[in-house]
Amino acid sequence: MLINGSSESSISVLDRGLQYGDGLFETIAVAGGEPCLWQRHMRRLAQGCERLNIEYPDSATVLEEVYREIQGRPQGVIKIILTRGSGGRGYCPPEIQSPTRLVYFSEWPNYSEKLSRSGVRIRICNIRLGQNPALAGLKTLNRLEQVLARAEWSNPEIAEGLMLDEKENLVEGTMSNLFLVYGDCLATPDLGSCGVAGIMRELVMEQAKRLSLSLSEQNLTLRDLASADGLFLSNSLIGIWPVREVEGRKINPAAVPSPLIDAVMKYGFRFGT
Amino acid sequence: MLINGSSESSISVLDRGLQYGDGLFETIAVAGGEPCLWQRHMRRLAQGCERLNIEYPDSATVLEEVYREIQGRPQGVIKIILTRGSGGRGYCPPEIQSPTRLVYFSEWPNYSEKLSRSGVRIRICNIRLGQNPALAGLKTLNRLEQVLARAEWSNPEIAEGLMLDEKENLVEGTMSNLFLVYGDCLATPDLGSCGVAGIMRELVMEQAKRLSLSLSEQNLTLRDLASADGLFLSNSLIGIWPVREVEGRKINPAAVPSPLIDAVMKYGFRFGT
Repeated sequence: MLINGSSESSISVLDRGLQYGDGLFETIAVAGGEPCLWQRHMRRLAQGCERLNIEYPDSATVLEEVYREIQGRPQGVIKIILTRGSGGRGYCPPEIQSPTRLVYFSEWPNYSEKLSRSGVRIRICNIRLGQNPALAGLKTLNRLEQVLARAEWSNPEIAEGLMLDEKENLVEGTMSNLFLVYGDCLATPDLGSCGVAGIMRELVMEQAKRLSLSLSEQNLTLRDLASADGLFLSNSLIGIWPVREVEGRKINPAAVPSPLIDAVMKYGFRFGT
Repeated sequence: MLINGSSESSISVLDRGLQYGDGLFETIAVAGGEPCLWQRHMRRLAQGCERLNIEYPDSATVLEEVYREIQGRPQGVIKIILTRGSGGRGYCPPEIQSPTRLVYFSEWPNYSEKLSRSGVRIRICNIRLGQNPALAGLKTLNRLEQVLARAEWSNPEIAEGLMLDEKENLVEGTMSNLFLVYGDCLATPDLGSCGVAGIMRELVMEQAKRLSLSLSEQNLTLRDLASADGLFLSNSLIGIWPVREVEGRKINPAAVPSPLIDAVMKYGFRFGT
Protein backbone atom coordinates (compact mmCIF):
# COMPACT_ATOMS: atom_id res chain seq x y z
CA MET A 1 0.00 0.00 0.00
CA LEU A 2 1.51 3.30 -1.08
CA ILE A 3 0.68 6.69 0.39
CA ASN A 4 2.20 9.49 -1.68
CA GLY A 5 4.71 6.93 -2.91
CA SER A 6 5.75 5.62 0.52
CA SER A 7 4.97 2.17 1.75
CA GLU A 8 2.39 2.83 4.48
CA SER A 9 -1.03 1.61 5.47
CA SER A 10 -2.48 4.35 7.61
CA ILE A 11 -3.52 7.93 7.08
CA SER A 12 -3.78 10.97 9.35
CA VAL A 13 -7.05 11.30 11.23
CA LEU A 14 -7.04 14.93 10.09
CA ASP A 15 -7.07 13.98 6.41
CA ARG A 16 -10.11 15.52 4.75
CA GLY A 17 -10.80 12.20 3.06
CA LEU A 18 -11.83 10.82 6.46
CA GLN A 19 -13.18 14.05 7.95
CA TYR A 20 -15.50 14.94 5.07
CA GLY A 21 -15.21 12.32 2.33
CA ASP A 22 -13.37 15.10 0.50
CA GLY A 23 -11.86 13.06 -2.31
CA LEU A 24 -12.27 10.66 -5.21
CA PHE A 25 -11.44 7.06 -6.03
CA GLU A 26 -10.95 4.65 -8.91
CA THR A 27 -11.29 0.87 -8.86
CA ILE A 28 -9.25 -0.68 -11.65
CA ALA A 29 -9.12 -4.27 -12.87
CA VAL A 30 -5.64 -5.77 -13.24
CA ALA A 31 -5.35 -8.33 -16.06
CA GLY A 32 -2.15 -9.73 -17.52
CA GLY A 33 -0.30 -7.67 -14.93
CA GLU A 34 -1.64 -4.42 -16.42
CA PRO A 35 -4.11 -1.85 -15.06
CA CYS A 36 -7.04 -2.11 -17.47
CA LEU A 37 -8.52 0.91 -19.23
CA TRP A 38 -5.83 3.00 -17.60
CA GLN A 39 -6.27 6.15 -19.64
CA ARG A 40 -10.01 6.21 -19.12
CA HIS A 41 -9.64 5.87 -15.36
CA MET A 42 -7.09 8.67 -15.25
CA ARG A 43 -9.27 10.87 -17.42
CA ARG A 44 -12.22 10.44 -15.06
CA LEU A 45 -10.00 11.11 -12.05
CA ALA A 46 -8.76 14.28 -13.74
CA GLN A 47 -12.32 15.40 -14.45
CA GLY A 48 -13.27 14.76 -10.83
CA CYS A 49 -10.26 16.76 -9.67
CA GLU A 50 -11.26 19.63 -11.88
CA ARG A 51 -14.82 19.69 -10.59
CA LEU A 52 -13.81 19.39 -6.92
CA ASN A 53 -10.78 21.63 -7.37
CA ILE A 54 -8.33 19.03 -6.08
CA GLU A 55 -4.84 19.11 -7.52
CA TYR A 56 -4.43 16.33 -10.08
CA PRO A 57 -1.35 14.16 -9.53
CA ASP A 58 1.28 13.44 -12.15
CA SER A 59 -0.11 10.51 -14.16
CA ALA A 60 3.31 8.96 -14.80
CA THR A 61 4.01 8.93 -11.06
CA VAL A 62 0.69 7.25 -10.34
CA LEU A 63 1.26 4.65 -13.05
CA GLU A 64 4.71 3.88 -11.66
CA GLU A 65 3.12 3.40 -8.22
CA VAL A 66 0.44 1.17 -9.69
CA TYR A 67 3.08 -1.15 -11.18
CA ARG A 68 4.99 -1.17 -7.90
CA GLU A 69 1.82 -2.33 -6.17
CA ILE A 70 0.95 -4.92 -8.82
CA GLN A 71 4.39 -6.52 -8.40
CA GLY A 72 3.96 -8.57 -11.53
CA ARG A 73 0.85 -10.34 -10.29
CA PRO A 74 -1.33 -11.12 -13.30
CA GLN A 75 -4.78 -10.54 -11.85
CA GLY A 76 -6.26 -8.39 -9.14
CA VAL A 77 -7.66 -4.96 -8.34
CA ILE A 78 -5.94 -1.62 -7.95
CA LYS A 79 -7.70 1.03 -5.93
CA ILE A 80 -6.60 4.64 -6.14
CA ILE A 81 -7.91 7.11 -3.58
CA LEU A 82 -7.13 10.80 -3.93
CA THR A 83 -8.11 13.16 -1.12
CA ARG A 84 -7.67 16.90 -0.66
CA GLY A 85 -5.21 16.11 2.16
CA SER A 86 -5.20 17.81 5.53
CA GLY A 87 -5.68 21.42 6.46
CA GLY A 88 -8.14 24.23 5.96
CA ARG A 89 -10.50 25.65 8.54
CA GLY A 90 -13.42 23.34 9.02
CA TYR A 91 -15.08 22.70 5.68
CA CYS A 92 -13.07 25.49 4.05
CA PRO A 93 -10.39 23.91 1.84
CA PRO A 94 -6.78 24.95 2.52
CA GLU A 95 -5.34 27.63 0.25
CA ILE A 96 -2.32 25.48 -0.48
CA GLN A 97 -3.33 21.88 -1.02
CA SER A 98 -1.25 18.79 -0.34
CA PRO A 99 -3.47 16.01 -1.67
CA THR A 100 -3.11 12.49 -0.34
CA ARG A 101 -2.65 9.78 -2.96
CA LEU A 102 -3.30 6.14 -2.01
CA VAL A 103 -2.56 3.26 -4.34
CA TYR A 104 -3.05 -0.35 -3.33
CA PHE A 105 -3.55 -3.81 -4.73
CA SER A 106 -6.09 -6.34 -3.58
CA GLU A 107 -7.08 -9.83 -4.68
CA TRP A 108 -9.45 -10.39 -7.56
CA PRO A 109 -12.97 -10.85 -6.15
CA ASN A 110 -14.36 -14.35 -6.48
CA TYR A 111 -16.93 -13.50 -9.16
CA SER A 112 -17.73 -16.49 -11.33
CA GLU A 113 -16.67 -15.87 -14.94
CA LYS A 114 -19.80 -17.60 -16.19
CA LEU A 115 -22.04 -14.89 -14.75
CA SER A 116 -21.26 -12.92 -17.91
CA ARG A 117 -23.36 -15.49 -19.78
CA SER A 118 -25.73 -17.09 -17.29
CA GLY A 119 -26.73 -13.82 -15.72
CA VAL A 120 -27.43 -12.68 -12.18
CA ARG A 121 -30.33 -12.19 -9.82
CA ILE A 122 -30.91 -8.66 -8.57
CA ARG A 123 -33.27 -6.65 -6.40
CA ILE A 124 -34.60 -3.10 -6.15
CA CYS A 125 -33.30 -1.11 -3.20
CA ASN A 126 -35.54 0.90 -0.92
CA ILE A 127 -33.16 3.73 -0.17
CA ARG A 128 -33.13 6.45 -2.81
CA LEU A 129 -30.21 8.42 -4.23
CA GLY A 130 -30.26 12.12 -3.40
CA GLN A 131 -29.92 14.36 -6.45
CA ASN A 132 -27.14 16.88 -6.78
CA PRO A 133 -25.87 17.98 -10.20
CA ALA A 134 -22.72 19.39 -8.56
CA LEU A 135 -21.62 15.87 -7.62
CA ALA A 136 -23.43 13.84 -10.29
CA GLY A 137 -21.20 11.51 -12.27
CA LEU A 138 -18.29 11.72 -9.83
CA LYS A 139 -16.87 8.77 -7.94
CA THR A 140 -16.45 10.57 -4.63
CA LEU A 141 -15.72 9.24 -1.17
CA ASN A 142 -19.28 10.14 -0.09
CA ARG A 143 -20.82 6.69 -0.45
CA LEU A 144 -23.16 6.25 2.48
CA GLU A 145 -26.19 5.83 0.23
CA GLN A 146 -24.51 2.87 -1.44
CA VAL A 147 -23.53 1.38 1.92
CA LEU A 148 -27.11 1.60 3.21
CA ALA A 149 -28.46 0.20 -0.06
CA ARG A 150 -26.05 -2.74 0.04
CA ALA A 151 -26.98 -3.39 3.67
CA GLU A 152 -30.59 -4.02 2.64
CA TRP A 153 -29.92 -7.64 1.68
CA SER A 154 -27.64 -10.43 2.82
CA ASN A 155 -28.70 -13.28 0.53
CA PRO A 156 -25.50 -14.14 -1.38
CA GLU A 157 -27.58 -15.27 -4.37
CA ILE A 158 -28.59 -11.67 -4.98
CA ALA A 159 -25.70 -10.12 -6.88
CA GLU A 160 -26.75 -6.50 -6.97
CA GLY A 161 -29.43 -3.98 -6.05
CA LEU A 162 -30.81 -1.27 -8.33
CA MET A 163 -31.15 2.25 -6.99
CA LEU A 164 -33.70 4.89 -7.90
CA ASP A 165 -33.48 8.61 -7.25
CA GLU A 166 -35.90 10.70 -5.23
CA LYS A 167 -38.06 11.16 -8.35
CA GLU A 168 -38.35 7.38 -8.84
CA ASN A 169 -36.06 7.31 -11.85
CA LEU A 170 -33.72 4.35 -12.18
CA VAL A 171 -30.06 5.39 -11.81
CA GLU A 172 -27.67 2.47 -11.35
CA GLY A 173 -26.75 -0.50 -9.20
CA THR A 174 -24.98 0.00 -5.87
CA MET A 175 -21.67 -0.78 -7.59
CA SER A 176 -22.58 -0.99 -11.28
CA ASN A 177 -24.07 0.81 -14.26
CA LEU A 178 -27.47 -0.17 -15.63
CA PHE A 179 -28.57 -0.78 -19.22
CA LEU A 180 -32.01 -1.82 -20.47
CA VAL A 181 -32.36 -3.75 -23.71
CA TYR A 182 -35.24 -3.41 -26.20
CA GLY A 183 -34.43 -5.59 -29.20
CA ASP A 184 -31.42 -3.91 -30.82
CA CYS A 185 -31.84 -0.74 -28.78
CA LEU A 186 -30.17 0.03 -25.49
CA ALA A 187 -31.09 2.64 -22.91
CA THR A 188 -29.17 3.77 -19.85
CA PRO A 189 -30.15 6.29 -17.19
CA ASP A 190 -29.20 9.89 -17.68
CA LEU A 191 -26.72 10.84 -14.93
CA GLY A 192 -27.30 14.58 -14.86
CA SER A 193 -28.47 14.68 -11.28
CA CYS A 194 -26.90 11.66 -9.58
CA GLY A 195 -25.03 8.42 -10.16
CA VAL A 196 -21.50 7.53 -11.17
CA ALA A 197 -20.34 7.94 -14.77
CA GLY A 198 -18.78 4.49 -15.01
CA ILE A 199 -15.70 3.72 -17.05
CA MET A 200 -17.27 0.47 -18.24
CA ARG A 201 -20.50 2.35 -18.98
CA GLU A 202 -18.52 4.56 -21.33
CA LEU A 203 -16.94 1.53 -22.99
CA VAL A 204 -20.33 -0.19 -23.37
CA MET A 205 -21.71 2.92 -25.04
CA GLU A 206 -18.78 3.10 -27.47
CA GLN A 207 -18.94 -0.57 -28.34
CA ALA A 208 -22.70 -0.39 -28.81
CA LYS A 209 -22.14 2.41 -31.30
CA ARG A 210 -19.44 0.43 -33.11
CA LEU A 211 -21.86 -2.51 -33.36
CA SER A 212 -24.61 -0.22 -34.69
CA LEU A 213 -26.84 -0.81 -31.69
CA SER A 214 -28.85 2.30 -30.94
CA LEU A 215 -28.32 3.70 -27.46
CA SER A 216 -30.00 6.50 -25.56
CA GLU A 217 -29.29 8.18 -22.23
CA GLN A 218 -32.62 9.12 -20.75
CA ASN A 219 -34.89 9.07 -17.73
CA LEU A 220 -35.96 5.48 -17.05
CA THR A 221 -38.50 4.18 -14.57
CA LEU A 222 -39.53 0.83 -13.14
CA ARG A 223 -42.21 0.77 -15.84
CA ASP A 224 -39.49 0.94 -18.50
CA LEU A 225 -37.67 -1.87 -16.74
CA ALA A 226 -40.85 -3.96 -16.69
CA SER A 227 -41.27 -3.60 -20.45
CA ALA A 228 -37.62 -4.29 -21.35
CA ASP A 229 -36.62 -7.49 -23.15
CA GLY A 230 -33.52 -7.67 -21.01
CA LEU A 231 -31.14 -5.72 -18.88
CA PHE A 232 -27.53 -5.85 -17.84
CA LEU A 233 -25.08 -4.35 -15.40
CA SER A 234 -21.52 -3.24 -16.00
CA ASN A 235 -18.52 -2.11 -14.02
CA SER A 236 -14.74 -2.19 -14.27
CA LEU A 237 -14.40 -5.54 -12.53
CA ILE A 238 -17.38 -7.51 -13.83
CA GLY A 239 -17.42 -6.22 -17.39
CA ILE A 240 -21.02 -7.13 -18.22
CA TRP A 241 -23.48 -9.14 -16.18
CA PRO A 242 -26.77 -9.90 -17.92
CA VAL A 243 -29.68 -10.07 -15.48
CA ARG A 244 -31.82 -13.18 -15.31
CA GLU A 245 -34.13 -12.26 -12.44
CA VAL A 246 -35.33 -9.00 -10.89
CA GLU A 247 -37.22 -9.23 -7.61
CA GLY A 248 -38.31 -12.76 -8.45
CA ARG A 249 -39.40 -11.95 -12.02
CA LYS A 250 -37.53 -14.00 -14.65
CA ILE A 251 -35.95 -12.10 -17.48
CA ASN A 252 -34.09 -13.47 -20.49
CA PRO A 253 -30.32 -13.03 -20.06
CA ALA A 254 -29.89 -13.90 -23.76
CA ALA A 255 -31.68 -10.67 -24.66
CA VAL A 256 -28.35 -8.92 -24.14
CA PRO A 257 -26.62 -8.90 -27.55
CA SER A 258 -23.76 -11.42 -27.51
CA PRO A 259 -21.48 -9.34 -29.76
CA LEU A 260 -21.69 -6.53 -27.23
CA ILE A 261 -20.73 -8.81 -24.34
CA ASP A 262 -17.87 -10.24 -26.43
CA ALA A 263 -16.56 -6.79 -27.31
CA VAL A 264 -16.76 -5.45 -23.76
CA MET A 265 -15.09 -8.52 -22.28
CA LYS A 266 -12.37 -8.20 -24.93
CA TYR A 267 -11.67 -4.46 -24.79
CA GLY A 268 -12.55 -3.93 -21.15
CA PHE A 269 -9.72 -5.96 -19.68
CA ARG A 270 -6.56 -4.65 -21.21
CA PHE A 271 -4.30 -1.69 -20.75
CA GLY A 272 -4.73 1.49 -22.73
CA THR A 273 -7.82 3.32 -23.80
CA MET B 1 -5.67 12.01 19.90
CA LEU B 2 -7.26 8.72 20.95
CA ILE B 3 -8.23 5.89 18.62
CA ASN B 4 -10.28 3.27 20.45
CA GLY B 5 -8.65 4.53 23.63
CA SER B 6 -5.03 4.36 22.42
CA SER B 7 -2.91 7.40 21.81
CA GLU B 8 -2.59 7.46 18.01
CA SER B 9 -3.05 9.90 15.20
CA SER B 10 -3.55 7.76 12.11
CA ILE B 11 -6.16 5.34 10.91
CA SER B 12 -6.11 2.35 8.54
CA VAL B 13 -6.58 3.19 4.88
CA LEU B 14 -9.12 0.36 4.83
CA ASP B 15 -11.32 2.02 7.45
CA ARG B 16 -14.79 2.52 6.02
CA GLY B 17 -14.78 6.05 7.38
CA LEU B 18 -12.22 6.94 4.71
CA GLN B 19 -13.36 4.50 2.04
CA TYR B 20 -17.04 5.49 2.08
CA GLY B 21 -17.63 8.20 4.66
CA ASP B 22 -19.30 5.38 6.58
CA GLY B 23 -19.58 7.04 9.98
CA LEU B 24 -20.74 9.93 12.13
CA PHE B 25 -19.20 12.77 14.08
CA GLU B 26 -19.87 15.24 16.88
CA THR B 27 -18.21 18.60 17.45
CA ILE B 28 -18.45 19.59 21.10
CA ALA B 29 -17.55 22.85 22.81
CA VAL B 30 -15.33 22.57 25.89
CA ALA B 31 -15.98 25.24 28.52
CA GLY B 32 -14.74 25.25 32.10
CA GLY B 33 -12.92 22.02 31.26
CA GLU B 34 -16.20 20.23 30.55
CA PRO B 35 -17.71 18.92 27.29
CA CYS B 36 -20.81 21.06 26.83
CA LEU B 37 -24.26 19.60 26.27
CA TRP B 38 -22.72 16.17 26.64
CA GLN B 39 -25.90 14.18 26.96
CA ARG B 40 -27.45 15.77 23.91
CA HIS B 41 -24.40 15.03 21.80
CA MET B 42 -24.35 11.41 22.92
CA ARG B 43 -28.06 11.07 22.29
CA ARG B 44 -27.67 12.31 18.73
CA LEU B 45 -24.71 10.01 18.18
CA ALA B 46 -26.79 7.10 19.45
CA GLN B 47 -29.65 7.98 17.12
CA GLY B 48 -27.22 8.17 14.20
CA CYS B 49 -25.80 4.77 15.12
CA GLU B 50 -29.27 3.31 15.24
CA ARG B 51 -30.20 4.65 11.81
CA LEU B 52 -26.90 3.60 10.19
CA ASN B 53 -26.74 0.35 12.16
CA ILE B 54 -23.33 1.13 13.64
CA GLU B 55 -22.62 -0.28 17.08
CA TYR B 56 -22.93 2.48 19.69
CA PRO B 57 -19.93 2.72 22.01
CA ASP B 58 -20.12 2.69 25.79
CA SER B 59 -20.89 6.30 26.78
CA ALA B 60 -18.88 6.14 30.00
CA THR B 61 -15.83 4.98 28.05
CA VAL B 62 -16.20 7.82 25.58
CA LEU B 63 -16.61 10.38 28.36
CA GLU B 64 -13.51 9.09 30.08
CA GLU B 65 -11.62 9.47 26.79
CA VAL B 66 -12.98 12.97 26.34
CA TYR B 67 -11.60 14.02 29.74
CA ARG B 68 -8.26 12.40 28.96
CA GLU B 69 -8.08 14.51 25.81
CA ILE B 70 -9.20 17.73 27.50
CA GLN B 71 -6.38 17.35 30.06
CA GLY B 72 -7.88 20.01 32.29
CA ARG B 73 -7.75 22.72 29.62
CA PRO B 74 -10.64 25.10 30.24
CA GLN B 75 -11.65 25.91 26.67
CA GLY B 76 -11.46 24.17 23.31
CA VAL B 77 -13.23 21.74 21.04
CA ILE B 78 -13.66 17.98 21.25
CA LYS B 79 -14.36 16.11 18.06
CA ILE B 80 -15.66 12.56 18.17
CA ILE B 81 -15.67 10.50 14.98
CA LEU B 82 -17.26 7.07 14.94
CA THR B 83 -16.86 4.88 11.85
CA ARG B 84 -18.09 1.40 11.02
CA GLY B 85 -14.44 0.28 11.12
CA SER B 86 -12.81 -1.94 8.51
CA GLY B 87 -14.11 -5.00 6.74
CA GLY B 88 -17.04 -6.12 4.68
CA ARG B 89 -17.06 -6.77 0.95
CA GLY B 90 -17.13 -3.52 -0.92
CA TYR B 91 -20.08 -1.45 0.24
CA CYS B 92 -21.52 -4.43 2.10
CA PRO B 93 -21.00 -3.86 5.84
CA PRO B 94 -19.16 -6.60 7.75
CA GLU B 95 -21.31 -9.05 9.67
CA ILE B 96 -19.29 -8.47 12.81
CA GLN B 97 -18.49 -4.81 13.24
CA SER B 98 -15.47 -3.32 14.99
CA PRO B 99 -16.26 0.40 14.91
CA THR B 100 -13.44 2.91 15.08
CA ARG B 101 -13.80 5.60 17.74
CA LEU B 102 -11.72 8.78 17.49
CA VAL B 103 -11.66 11.41 20.19
CA TYR B 104 -9.47 14.49 19.99
CA PHE B 105 -9.09 17.99 21.33
CA SER B 106 -8.38 21.10 19.32
CA GLU B 107 -8.01 24.78 20.14
CA TRP B 108 -11.02 27.01 20.45
CA PRO B 109 -11.59 28.77 17.10
CA ASN B 110 -10.89 32.49 17.14
CA TYR B 111 -14.52 33.59 16.85
CA SER B 112 -15.07 36.99 18.36
CA GLU B 113 -17.41 36.79 21.36
CA LYS B 114 -19.07 40.02 20.36
CA LEU B 115 -20.49 38.45 17.17
CA SER B 116 -23.29 37.13 19.37
CA ARG B 117 -24.46 40.74 19.68
CA SER B 118 -23.14 42.66 16.72
CA GLY B 119 -24.07 39.99 14.20
CA VAL B 120 -22.40 38.55 11.12
CA ARG B 121 -22.43 39.00 7.37
CA ILE B 122 -23.51 35.96 5.35
CA ARG B 123 -24.11 34.90 1.77
CA ILE B 124 -26.30 32.45 -0.15
CA CYS B 125 -24.45 29.46 -1.62
CA ASN B 126 -24.93 28.31 -5.19
CA ILE B 127 -24.51 24.59 -4.59
CA ARG B 128 -27.68 22.86 -3.47
CA LEU B 129 -28.15 20.12 -0.88
CA GLY B 130 -29.32 16.81 -2.28
CA GLN B 131 -32.39 15.41 -0.54
CA ASN B 132 -32.42 12.04 1.11
CA PRO B 133 -34.73 11.27 4.02
CA ALA B 134 -32.61 8.20 4.89
CA LEU B 135 -29.71 10.47 5.84
CA ALA B 136 -31.59 13.66 6.76
CA GLY B 137 -30.77 15.03 10.20
CA LEU B 138 -27.64 12.91 10.62
CA LYS B 139 -24.16 14.33 11.06
CA THR B 140 -22.42 11.84 8.78
CA LEU B 141 -18.93 11.85 7.31
CA ASN B 142 -20.40 12.54 3.84
CA ARG B 143 -19.80 16.29 3.76
CA LEU B 144 -18.70 17.12 0.24
CA GLU B 145 -21.66 19.40 -0.35
CA GLN B 146 -20.60 21.52 2.62
CA VAL B 147 -16.98 21.55 1.44
CA LEU B 148 -17.98 22.77 -2.01
CA ALA B 149 -20.35 25.34 -0.52
CA ARG B 150 -17.66 26.68 1.81
CA ALA B 151 -15.22 26.86 -1.11
CA GLU B 152 -17.51 29.33 -2.87
CA TRP B 153 -16.14 32.31 -0.93
CA SER B 154 -12.83 33.36 0.57
CA ASN B 155 -13.67 36.82 1.96
CA PRO B 156 -13.00 36.44 5.71
CA GLU B 157 -15.66 39.07 6.46
CA ILE B 158 -18.32 36.63 5.32
CA ALA B 159 -18.95 34.38 8.29
CA GLU B 160 -21.26 31.80 6.78
CA GLY B 161 -23.18 30.71 3.68
CA LEU B 162 -26.78 29.57 3.60
CA MET B 163 -27.67 26.45 1.67
CA LEU B 164 -30.89 25.61 -0.16
CA ASP B 165 -32.08 22.20 -1.27
CA GLU B 166 -32.87 21.12 -4.82
CA LYS B 167 -36.41 22.45 -4.41
CA GLU B 168 -35.11 25.91 -3.44
CA ASN B 169 -36.06 25.57 0.20
CA LEU B 170 -33.71 27.05 2.78
CA VAL B 171 -32.07 24.35 4.91
CA GLU B 172 -29.13 25.58 6.98
CA GLY B 173 -25.71 27.19 6.90
CA THR B 174 -22.66 25.18 5.86
CA MET B 175 -21.84 24.66 9.55
CA SER B 176 -24.84 26.10 11.37
CA ASN B 177 -28.59 25.95 11.86
CA LEU B 178 -30.85 28.71 10.55
CA PHE B 179 -33.68 30.56 12.27
CA LEU B 180 -35.86 33.36 10.87
CA VAL B 181 -37.45 35.90 13.20
CA TYR B 182 -40.86 37.54 12.69
CA GLY B 183 -41.56 39.70 15.74
CA ASP B 184 -41.99 37.19 18.58
CA CYS B 185 -42.24 34.24 16.22
CA LEU B 186 -39.38 32.04 15.07
CA ALA B 187 -39.25 29.67 12.12
CA THR B 188 -36.61 27.12 11.23
CA PRO B 189 -36.39 24.84 8.20
CA ASP B 190 -37.97 21.42 8.38
CA LEU B 191 -35.18 18.81 8.15
CA GLY B 192 -37.21 15.91 6.83
CA SER B 193 -35.27 15.56 3.61
CA CYS B 194 -31.82 17.00 4.29
CA GLY B 195 -29.74 18.99 6.76
CA VAL B 196 -28.24 18.31 10.16
CA ALA B 197 -30.43 18.22 13.26
CA GLY B 198 -28.18 20.47 15.31
CA ILE B 199 -27.70 20.13 19.05
CA MET B 200 -27.81 23.90 19.43
CA ARG B 201 -30.88 24.01 17.19
CA GLU B 202 -32.61 21.71 19.67
CA LEU B 203 -31.56 23.92 22.58
CA VAL B 204 -32.74 27.07 20.80
CA MET B 205 -36.12 25.47 20.21
CA GLU B 206 -36.46 24.47 23.85
CA GLN B 207 -35.41 27.86 25.14
CA ALA B 208 -37.77 29.61 22.72
CA LYS B 209 -40.60 27.52 24.14
CA ARG B 210 -39.56 28.34 27.70
CA LEU B 211 -39.59 32.04 26.82
CA SER B 212 -43.04 31.69 25.18
CA LEU B 213 -41.74 32.58 21.75
CA SER B 214 -43.69 30.72 19.10
CA LEU B 215 -41.60 28.50 16.88
CA SER B 216 -42.42 26.48 13.78
CA GLU B 217 -40.46 23.96 11.71
CA GLN B 218 -41.56 24.40 8.13
CA ASN B 219 -40.53 24.85 4.52
CA LEU B 220 -38.87 28.25 4.13
CA THR B 221 -37.78 30.00 0.95
CA LEU B 222 -35.68 33.04 0.05
CA ARG B 223 -38.95 34.97 -0.09
CA ASP B 224 -39.57 34.12 3.58
CA LEU B 225 -36.05 35.25 4.35
CA ALA B 226 -36.63 38.54 2.53
CA SER B 227 -39.72 39.27 4.61
CA ALA B 228 -38.19 38.32 7.97
CA ASP B 229 -37.45 40.97 10.62
CA GLY B 230 -34.25 39.19 11.46
CA LEU B 231 -32.41 35.91 11.33
CA PHE B 232 -29.77 34.07 13.26
CA LEU B 233 -27.48 31.07 13.06
CA SER B 234 -26.61 28.57 15.75
CA ASN B 235 -24.20 25.74 16.36
CA SER B 236 -22.41 24.07 19.24
CA LEU B 237 -19.41 26.38 19.09
CA ILE B 238 -20.92 29.76 18.25
CA GLY B 239 -24.11 29.48 20.28
CA ILE B 240 -26.11 32.14 18.46
CA TRP B 241 -24.94 34.58 15.80
CA PRO B 242 -27.52 37.17 14.75
CA VAL B 243 -27.17 38.13 11.09
CA ARG B 244 -26.65 41.78 10.16
CA GLU B 245 -26.22 41.44 6.41
CA VAL B 246 -27.28 38.87 3.79
CA GLU B 247 -25.77 39.24 0.31
CA GLY B 248 -25.27 42.96 0.88
CA ARG B 249 -28.76 43.59 2.27
CA LYS B 250 -28.72 45.05 5.82
CA ILE B 251 -30.86 43.33 8.39
CA ASN B 252 -31.40 44.27 12.01
CA PRO B 253 -29.37 42.00 14.33
CA ALA B 254 -31.40 43.35 17.28
CA ALA B 255 -34.49 41.66 15.85
CA VAL B 256 -33.26 38.48 17.51
CA PRO B 257 -34.82 38.41 20.99
CA SER B 258 -32.15 39.19 23.59
CA PRO B 259 -33.57 36.85 26.24
CA LEU B 260 -33.18 34.00 23.78
CA ILE B 261 -29.55 34.82 23.09
CA ASP B 262 -28.91 35.15 26.83
CA ALA B 263 -30.51 31.78 27.56
CA VAL B 264 -28.71 29.93 24.79
CA MET B 265 -25.33 31.42 25.68
CA LYS B 266 -26.00 30.46 29.31
CA TYR B 267 -27.32 26.91 28.89
CA GLY B 268 -25.39 26.05 25.73
CA PHE B 269 -21.94 26.12 27.25
CA ARG B 270 -22.05 23.84 30.21
CA PHE B 271 -21.97 20.15 30.87
CA GLY B 272 -25.14 18.12 31.10
CA THR B 273 -28.36 18.29 29.20
